[in-house]
Amino acid sequence: MDKRTKTLILFDIYGDLLTEKQKTIMDYYYNDDLSLSEIGENGKISRQAIHDTIKKCEKLLYGYEEKLQLLKKNTILKETKEEIEDILLRLDAESSEHVKDIVKSLRQKLKEIN
Amino acid sequence: MDKRTKTLILFDIYGDLLTEKQKTIMDYYYNDDLSLSEIGENGKISRQAIHDTIKKCEKLLYGYEEKLQLLKKNTILKETKEEIEDILLRLDAESSEHVKDIVKSLRQKLKEIN
Repeated sequence: MDKRTKTLILFDIYGDLLTEKQKTIMDYYYNDDLSLSEIGENGKISRQAIHDTIKKCEKLLYGYEEKLQLLKKNTILKETKEEIEDILLRLDAESSEHVKDIVKSLRQKLKEIN
Repeated sequence: MDKRTKTLILFDIYGDLLTEKQKTIMDYYYNDDLSLSEIGENGKISRQAIHDTIKKCEKLLYGYEEKLQLLKKNTILKETKEEIEDILLRLDAESSEHVKDIVKSLRQKLKEIN
């Protein structure tokens, strides 16, 4: 995963831990793809100040991940769910109506895991 | 769940987001059950200062939960896993050797979900 993609995901996970001002600037930069100058509204805030805020936010987001590991855990959870789905597919293909019903309820439960 | 229990769980989940000093004081107060005076090493730090730190940390922990909802998500995840376990128990009791093997692998996968 490239750094920009990872930062975007971390911003999605931990963004609410930033201040409103920090969130807005990160949102402009990462989601709306605005330039530092555009974010600073062409001179009202210096490019350097915007740049510093973005760097600070990135450091915060990567620090949160280091401490809480939510991206790592989410990735493992997603993979595990896919593996369970594969097993259920096999089970479903080979089984009686009764087992099929149980598989259906397992699938339903699995959807609830997030 | 009473407030003390909830605070302990939130400290377990989000404790790493506190500073080392905050963590130590919260650990003394919540895990070792020391008094404010004992934590302040009998006068070196005032009872009021320790009290303020604990209140500040509690506010931070409840704030993190409000924003990230990890306790809530963990609770739902735990319940869902228990429900899946119940379904697997039923499936296991009723099935052929082949399905039993599949159930075994599903159980294994489920253990990996945290």
